[in-house]
Amino acid sequence: MADLKSTFLNVYSVLKSELLHDPAFEFSDDARNWVDRMLDYNVPGGKLNRGLSVIDSYRLLKEGQALNDDEIFHASALGWCIEWLQAYFLVLDDIMDNSHTRRGQPCWFRVPKVGMIAANDGVLLRNHIPRILKKHFRGKPYYVDLLDLFNEVEFQTASGQMIDLITTLEGEKDLSKYTLTLHRRIVQYKTAYYSFYLPVACALLMAGEDLDNHVDVKNILVEMGTYFQVQDDYLDCFGDPQTIGKIGTDIEDFKCSWLVVKALELSNEQQKKVLHENYGKADPENVAKVKALYNELNLQAVFEEYENGSYAKLVSSIEAHPSKAVQAVLKSFLAKIYKRQK
Amino acid sequence: MADLKSTFLNVYSVLKSELLHDPAFEFSDDARNWVDRMLDYNVPGGKLNRGLSVIDSYRLLKEGQALNDDEIFHASALGWCIEWLQAYFLVLDDIMDNSHTRRGQPCWFRVPKVGMIAANDGVLLRNHIPRILKKHFRGKPYYVDLLDLFNEVEFQTASGQMIDLITTLEGEKDLSKYTLTLHRRIVQYKTAYYSFYLPVACALLMAGEDLDNHVDVKNILVEMGTYFQVQDDYLDCFGDPQTIGKIGTDIEDFKCSWLVVKALELSNEQQKKVLHENYGKADPENVAKVKALYNELNLQAVFEEYENGSYAKLVSSIEAHPSKAVQAVLKSFLAKIYKRQK
Ligand SMILES: [Mg+2]
Ligand SMILES: [Mg+2]
Ligand SMILES: [Mg+2]
Ligand SMILES: [Mg+2]
Ligand SMILES: [Mg+2]
Ligand SMILES: [Mg+2]
Repeated sequence: MADLKSTFLNVYSVLKSELLHDPAFEFSDDARNWVDRMLDYNVPGGKLNRGLSVIDSYRLLKEGQALNDDEIFHASALGWCIEWLQAYFLVLDDIMDNSHTRRGQPCWFRVPKVGMIAANDGVLLRNHIPRILKKHFRGKPYYVDLLDLFNEVEFQTASGQMIDLITTLEGEKDLSKYTLTLHRRIVQYKTAYYSFYLPVACALLMAGEDLDNHVDVKNILVEMGTYFQVQDDYLDCFGDPQTIGKIGTDIEDFKCSWLVVKALELSNEQQKKVLHENYGKADPENVAKVKALYNELNLQAVFEEYENGSYAKLVSSIEAHPSKAVQAVLKSFLAKIYKRQK
Repeated sequence: MADLKSTFLNVYSVLKSELLHDPAFEFSDDARNWVDRMLDYNVPGGKLNRGLSVIDSYRLLKEGQALNDDEIFHASALGWCIEWLQAYFLVLDDIMDNSHTRRGQPCWFRVPKVGMIAANDGVLLRNHIPRILKKHFRGKPYYVDLLDLFNEVEFQTASGQMIDLITTLEGEKDLSKYTLTLHRRIVQYKTAYYSFYLPVACALLMAGEDLDNHVDVKNILVEMGTYFQVQDDYLDCFGDPQTIGKIGTDIEDFKCSWLVVKALELSNEQQKKVLHENYGKADPENVAKVKALYNELNLQAVFEEYENGSYAKLVSSIEAHPSKAVQAVLKSFLAKIYKRQK
């Protein structure tokens, strides 16, 4: 596993070097240095779960057959495309959320001399994906499906971001608009497709599968991604900032978080009043009152119950799948996130 | 021509309606209204030259053969993809340049309640392009070439934006870094590929051509795009704000504009000092000093000379092209921009 990660990181170096010498653009030294630093700052510093899981999934789909170097390289390259996609979304998301830290360091747009150039850097990160795909997959029979897949998932993620952002505008006028149905729709689109479905879909394409035959796999992964985002919402408030690498600000930011939705559901009139009066304010006193209410409502226990229920449901849908190899892929994903602390 | 424009605008309505009912995303009413308003605000309000020129070019490539409805629809759809691409870049560019007006109205990010959501709206605009291409071109033999083309041109444009932005950072330290070579590289990438090459390349693909056989056409169009951007730089200072729909701020923004590059080239030591002391400052007094120097150096005449020289060179490269149909396409482009006032 440590070995897999170092192989994976080597592929990053290869891809980066290719991008820094892409013949479609005449790089000056300044330009090359900028992109080099921007990539190192934003792409490889995360947990790399999404990227690594392409290789993992592909291996499981091959049912234990040893992968050759070429297969490892290609699965890694697709994994990195997902990490690039994630970096693109995070760079822009931090601008839009006016965030401070990410992965234990200042957000890219807060780095001196970067500022709003970060928006174009986000766009560049996104543009690197088709460059990588063209260079390494142009001759593959599934090349066009790969382009369609990345395009569709990016569209869904951007649409999820949009409802996340405009919901917050609406919620500021009327907190009671935050419901479980709305929360579910946001997280399905903004997180689940790219974090869960996309890595497995990449592995399926590499294995020669037709994605139209795997709608059930998509549904299970979207379900898993929803659970993952509920964890994210939970950790934003109850996680350890040291461990998760950022200081949560969902309460301050008026986010349609699973926690506030659950709190609204469980509150009496008096408690609802506390939420309406304190949610979405930057003042630490307001934030403290919201957190106190979350504790009063025992949201940690409510979350634990949700987590156990989700897990049980996911395991049973996975075990209903006809292919043992696909079951293994899905179980491996689930194991990686169940009861995660970061 | 008025008729062509109304046909073209009808295709916009069709495409918009399809996007607002895209089955890849579950729209709520709020979300649909947001996208609807965002599209109307940002996509169809420009000169539409880039979009219309796809239809024009395709018609000329067909050497006068009447186009059927299906061909007109498809050429229009590709034209709109370019307008969508432009809208995406402009929305983000206005954020990065901290601009105020665009096409005679406030920049999208300055509209109340939009703010930084505009960054994601830019991303959504970009994502609409592959949705349009997939819906209407998935079955065409040139579908994959179309995806590759849009991807490559977007990459080049984003790279051009990057050097525009980081050059400004460097220039702030040392204005003498601004040279014609650097200026040329910026405008070639940030403007010429998507504004000039892309429409013709779309028409060539629709006409069944292989783009690899048309490198000379690309070179001429990139040259034309460079001339176009020099005009843009010129109009930023000397154009009529009413006519061009925005108030130029290149001087305030320390832009590597053709005007400052020429001014540096033509200045004596005393005049250079004026530039170094006043360029890139927001104070109207500083701006006025720069403009006075531009007049002193007679930059309007220098520009006129450049314009005439460029035109003559372009005409002779066009006339050297073996195909009369291609010549007609290129001449039609050139006629549209020669001596433009907006
Ligand atoms: Mg955020
Ligand atoms: Mg966000
Ligand atoms: Mg979060
Ligand atoms: Mg601008
Ligand atoms: Mg700009
Ligand atoms: Mg300009």
